[in-house]
Amino acid sequence: MKAERCYLDHNATTPLREEARAAMLAAMDVLGNPSSVHSEGRKAKMLVEKARAQVAALVGCLPTQVIFTSSATEAAALAVAQKARHGGVFAALPTEHDCLEVWSELSLPSWYGAQGAYRPRQGAQPVLLAVSAANSETGVLPPEGFLADLDRRNVVCDVTQVAGKMAFPFGGDDRPAYAILSAHKFGGPKGVGALINYTRDDPEPLLRGGGQEMNRRSGTENITGIAGFGAAAEAAARDVASGRWEEIEELRNILENALATSAKKTIFVGNQVPRLPNTSCIIAEGWKGETQVMQMDLAGFAISAGSACSSGKVKASKVLQAMGYNESEAASAIRVSLGLATTKTDVLRFADEWLAKRDKHTERAA
Amino acid sequence: MKAERCYLDHNATTPLREEARAAMLAAMDVLGNPSSVHSEGRKAKMLVEKARAQVAALVGCLPTQVIFTSSATEAAALAVAQKARHGGVFAALPTEHDCLEVWSELSLPSWYGAQGAYRPRQGAQPVLLAVSAANSETGVLPPEGFLADLDRRNVVCDVTQVAGKMAFPFGGDDRPAYAILSAHKFGGPKGVGALINYTRDDPEPLLRGGGQEMNRRSGTENITGIAGFGAAAEAAARDVASGRWEEIEELRNILENALATSAKKTIFVGNQVPRLPNTSCIIAEGWKGETQVMQMDLAGFAISAGSACSSGKVKASKVLQAMGYNESEAASAIRVSLGLATTKTDVLRFADEWLAKRDKHTERAA
Repeated sequence: MKAERCYLDHNATTPLREEARAAMLAAMDVLGNPSSVHSEGRKAKMLVEKARAQVAALVGCLPTQVIFTSSATEAAALAVAQKARHGGVFAALPTEHDCLEVWSELSLPSWYGAQGAYRPRQGAQPVLLAVSAANSETGVLPPEGFLADLDRRNVVCDVTQVAGKMAFPFGGDDRPAYAILSAHKFGGPKGVGALINYTRDDPEPLLRGGGQEMNRRSGTENITGIAGFGAAAEAAARDVASGRWEEIEELRNILENALATSAKKTIFVGNQVPRLPNTSCIIAEGWKGETQVMQMDLAGFAISAGSACSSGKVKASKVLQAMGYNESEAASAIRVSLGLATTKTDVLRFADEWLAKRDKHTERAA
Repeated sequence: MKAERCYLDHNATTPLREEARAAMLAAMDVLGNPSSVHSEGRKAKMLVEKARAQVAALVGCLPTQVIFTSSATEAAALAVAQKARHGGVFAALPTEHDCLEVWSELSLPSWYGAQGAYRPRQGAQPVLLAVSAANSETGVLPPEGFLADLDRRNVVCDVTQVAGKMAFPFGGDDRPAYAILSAHKFGGPKGVGALINYTRDDPEPLLRGGGQEMNRRSGTENITGIAGFGAAAEAAARDVASGRWEEIEELRNILENALATSAKKTIFVGNQVPRLPNTSCIIAEGWKGETQVMQMDLAGFAISAGSACSSGKVKASKVLQAMGYNESEAASAIRVSLGLATTKTDVLRFADEWLAKRDKHTERAA
């Protein structure tokens, strides 16, 4: 008998929400090109604008401040690439996602200590600075009011992991210049994201031609994906408000307690500081993260070592090393990330299986 | 009683094919991130690679030469933007689509005469040159072997309107450096396209980070859209091979004959040279294209004046002016573009309605 699969890799991507699926099915029947002036075109345009308002509501901005892109990665490039090319110094922490760090010309020392303490560095004055609202591998959040000490006009904030999992971290004047986000992290489809531009100036466009998205991002709109993005944003905001993620946090804590009780040396990264409610970054030193991922996959559990984008590459997590863990520890980490459909049975089954495999590993190593 | 809508704007966008819809529905149930190494991730990856092979078959290249993008516009930027930035001169004809022309630093005189004759200019030596395989507004094709006189290593070919409507124009050594295409022009979803790289060198990436698409285009893949793209490519190739577009061409000719018989001064742009089988660019001088589009829309017909991307802007077609038509003629053009579901009844109903409206316009103008 084949065991049922248990998906515990929701920071990599999430199952499509029913609301998103329904919106996408409806969009598939909308025939027009949103740039066409005839009735079919106007219907397609309305669908895009409905989704724009839904996404704006999730992130607390005006609909005109939402620029639809194909991913958070494209949103990052739109916010950063042109300024970086024009001689501005862009800085990202080593803990930032590759889609921001890749444009960085200034390497800053880590702002996170081993348990997530926030240490802003004096003196560095980049034109733009990337600050993620939650780290994708560890779930660690910056302290409250983390933008307060920075010149917000210079900050690109990666809200990819926060959006749809907790109350949105900015309100009123406490906003960065830009935020980047992605639909598939909260039940929307893969391949659609947005740049939120809280400033009055439009970024210099990367994609040019037909003038879509108010000349900020040309190319015929992914109306199916955008419709799913909007519906997922609305549903995700509702789930955050109703406290669904506090239940998930409880399951995450049950998981960590179960592991800690039997495997006392296990490290749970960031468990002394505020974290995303669904994320557990687990270090079992000496048992390689990649090996754990493969063994647990064969046992029916989907987890990851590091972020999905870089998980094909076998190397120690740069995020954990930047936080002060040594290479051996950083190479022995897995990320378990829970979702709305995760149950207590799931996390207890995972704990049993992981502990059994860990015992075998310890025996072999001994 | 409300008349049934008749969509005759297939060069702007097409209805989703059943094959594409089915592939998209199946992809919605594929949970993983293609970059994840676990079972769910590998299934998502397989889906992307299946579609890559299907698209490669349509355009006659190796699967590794297909770089999935969010649109032909993004594909154009990927092929051209970095080279243009690094000081290379990029040239586009004024008849090219905006997504290529926007990067152009060298304006070449038209290669198309009023009836589509091809006049390559001596002496110009740009680093890259845009050449569309068919014009989107008129359907006019370059003459056979149109790449033969050019250094193909320098050519970016826009095959957006050709792909899925006629046999692919390149074979063997007769290939450009790059081709750009878009799924939604042949029954695939909007918001997915590809850059076909026939060269051995990868273009400098625009979107960077996670390293997807073999480091050529980062960002989590639009797996729903890509699955639909692949399925549409396979179905479109089958329809081309089976002669479906010859039937569409017959309907286009019936339409033009019906109009020409009653409105003798009507100009059918490019009707003396090879054209796309489905496209009719119709000039009724003195009756503005935008007015025609609005009147026909109210009567239940979706057509366009100029390409969809620029149809929001009320101005005379630059394509027609570049072909030698005067401003008054260029401002009085519409594009009627047929699709696989178009019937003889559709085109005859269109002809009746258009002729009646034209008579009223002529009476009012007299």
